[in-house]
Amino acid sequence: MRTEESRLKVAIQGEPGAFSHVAAKELVGSGLELVPCPSFDALFAALEAGAAERALVPIENSLHGSIHENYDRLRAADAHIVGEVQLRVSHCLIGRPGSSLATIRSVASHAVALSQCRRFFADRPELERVVAYDTAGSVKDLLQGGLVTQAAIASRLAAELYGGKLLLEGLEDDPQNYTRFLLLAKEPRVARGADKTSLVFTLQNRPGALHEALGVFARRGVDLSKLESRPLRGKPWQYAFYLDVLGDPAGPAGEALAELRHLAADLRLLGSYVDGLRAIPAVVG
Amino acid sequence: MRTEESRLKVAIQGEPGAFSHVAAKELVGSGLELVPCPSFDALFAALEAGAAERALVPIENSLHGSIHENYDRLRAADAHIVGEVQLRVSHCLIGRPGSSLATIRSVASHAVALSQCRRFFADRPELERVVAYDTAGSVKDLLQGGLVTQAAIASRLAAELYGGKLLLEGLEDDPQNYTRFLLLAKEPRVARGADKTSLVFTLQNRPGALHEALGVFARRGVDLSKLESRPLRGKPWQYAFYLDVLGDPAGPAGEALAELRHLAADLRLLGSYVDGLRAIPAVVG
Repeated sequence: MRTEESRLKVAIQGEPGAFSHVAAKELVGSGLELVPCPSFDALFAALEAGAAERALVPIENSLHGSIHENYDRLRAADAHIVGEVQLRVSHCLIGRPGSSLATIRSVASHAVALSQCRRFFADRPELERVVAYDTAGSVKDLLQGGLVTQAAIASRLAAELYGGKLLLEGLEDDPQNYTRFLLLAKEPRVARGADKTSLVFTLQNRPGALHEALGVFARRGVDLSKLESRPLRGKPWQYAFYLDVLGDPAGPAGEALAELRHLAADLRLLGSYVDGLRAIPAVVG
Repeated sequence: MRTEESRLKVAIQGEPGAFSHVAAKELVGSGLELVPCPSFDALFAALEAGAAERALVPIENSLHGSIHENYDRLRAADAHIVGEVQLRVSHCLIGRPGSSLATIRSVASHAVALSQCRRFFADRPELERVVAYDTAGSVKDLLQGGLVTQAAIASRLAAELYGGKLLLEGLEDDPQNYTRFLLLAKEPRVARGADKTSLVFTLQNRPGALHEALGVFARRGVDLSKLESRPLRGKPWQYAFYLDVLGDPAGPAGEALAELRHLAADLRLLGSYVDGLRAIPAVVG
């Protein structure tokens, strides 16, 4: 029995109970050993140094769009994508034991979470909004030394972890609020059943170059789920393209990628993995 | 003589002396009448209400990429692009009269400007960084009630407007730091010599759809200078595409756009205007 070996150290940005933590539980299951990091730079450093075997990073939100800085870090870090998961982000109002909706006067959370609960605050103008460094961190702080007049907005997991009292659920304005996370490893590994491949490439700057590049997929009926452009450092108004390609990398999608390698000025495969968007998303309450 | 009529009210986000102000001077010249707005939402509202005849918004930076929120606002606002200009962003260290490099102890500016001058601060660890709401605003505040131990980072124009002393120029880490601005009007108007057209479109979600859409340009040898994807609200993982198309809109570029209108699920022309990236960029010091 070597149960130690079945555990997997996964770095996340944020405190335990952060939405990244919920996503990591979803992907990794009971073998998860969390490595909380104070910043995304620290997360990539933990993966690079071997302090974590995997890192889970949010890459896109269905309301706000791509998290471009993480695309940039992914490209610079030489990390490899080995998995994907999406979560529906549902915000909970969490108080101290003994608190209730009637006792609270101020609500702390990360600025983005506060901005996603505008209707909740509009209906309760008496509540003061307090910007905090982290959703789960605001629950942690509340339980360590807060008052019954204070509350926080975070995941249901944060309430459970720190012993907070769940006062309300579903505070978010828009229920179509999903975040897509990528699981990263230092070394490439193609998961069994992989049906999605991410890559980044650059092209010669001439008319029709992008059309020609996308033609390698269109001719084979290979579907793309995402195209994102990012500026190239030192080359104003030139771009790298990030692409998510659907289908078995051993099939037509892989043939298309081999052809694109000849057309592109520069191409790097970021990983092949099981498409996390086809599964029914977990609701994070 | 109706000189009043030759003036043009242009809304910018930020205080007089902001980089947007320099860009507005560059595009509009001596007839500029500035309408400073505290936020981008206020800027779009000023254009909508007629408080400004034009609005100038930063849309992309060569280091940080697109300013996606302004793409979203542009689409929602039903505003039209009528001009474009790029500026090289060069940061100046500005003090009060009587101050010098030897007297200053703290430096205030917008967080983005501070982050673009890392080398300057690394060489001077004794200087405290102070985050302010605006580059030019930090110069205004400094001159209204600051000390000779305080300085600010902003444009040379801000130093001139508020009577600050220019202590150093070219503080930015990366000289390839350009910002691209769009000039907006409430009504569409195609400028003489227009050679660039911006549009936003959506496609049916099927393999090859984007390749087919880009084919209308490739077949005519029409060049694209920018492709940007943004999430569609309420439709997770579906996108609108923003495209900048080069060439006379009365020529092959226009024919391509007419053909794309039949392929796209939805298409909106955002404006045809004189390409601001072909001109030598103004250096903003």
